[in-house]
Order: sequence, then structure tokens, then C-alpha cells
Amino acid sequence: MKLRVFITLKPGVLDPQGEAIRHALSALGFEGVNGVRQGKMIELDLAEENADKAVDQARSMCEKLLSNTVIESYRIEPA
Amino acid sequence: MKLRVFITLKPGVLDPQGEAIRHALSALGFEGVNGVRQGKMIELDLAEENADKAVDQARSMCEKLLSNTVIESYRIEPA
Repeated sequence: MKLRVFITLKPGVLDPQGEAIRHALSALGFEGVNGVRQGKMIELDLAEENADKAVDQARSMCEKLLSNTVIESYRIEPA
Repeated sequence: MKLRVFITLKPGVLDPQGEAIRHALSALGFEGVNGVRQGKMIELDLAEENADKAVDQARSMCEKLLSNTVIESYRIEPA
């Protein structure tokens, strides 16, 4: 089954990429941009068809590889 | 209002980052990973409170800066 994993920086963690986008938007003339945060989206196509087991597998992937749990949080959704 | 923009490679466009993740997962012992695609998620905090206008603004940002519309597609959602 297909899952989507969203990885975002935890609140309070500095996001230089997001800040760079905010500056670029402002340089392009977009006004009223209060904040920009950039995160990652990873689409997983797993052979496991049982939804609970697939989510468990994805959670284990997030803990071991996909996210840096010190500064990032993750969310798993069916695609 | 807050919006989320999801930027993904169009189908058929090679995704070396996704392939690297797939290989790394397999090296870590995760089996049954048929495919991995990596995309971006951008959280925008806009001063505009009218939902339609905010989405229009975000669409314009995607066309001009956030996405490369030749190889990427984007989707805008309220956060």
C-alpha cells in the first residue's frame, strides 16, 4: 500500500531554507508573507497490504532513517 | 491564513533522491519497498485572510518561485 510521510522541523528549530524562501518571495514582490517553513514529503510504496502493519513499518523507517527525531517530527498518512 | 503547498515530481521524472532512500532502506533491512518518491512541503503563513485570495496568491508563488512547473506539480491545501 502507498503511504505519505510528512517530515517537518519541530517548532522553535531554525529553518534557514524557509527563511530563504520568505526573502525570495518578498524580493519578487509578494507582500504579507508572515512565515515560511519547509518540510519534506516522502511517498512510500510498500508491499505490505495491511494498513496497520504498513504504518508500523513506515514509523520504524522514520525513526531509523527518514527523520532526525531530535529536531524533526513526522506524520504518516495513507496516500 | 496558513496554507500547505505540496510539490512533487511529475510521474516519469527520475527521482534520484527517492532512489537513494530506497537503497538505504533496503540496506537497513527493510523489505518490500517497491518505490520511494521524495517531494517538498512548504507551509505558508499569509496575512491574507480570505481563503480564495490566499490560495490564488499561493498559486502565483508556486508558478513564479516554489515549483519548477516543467518537472514538478504542486497542490495547495489549507493547513
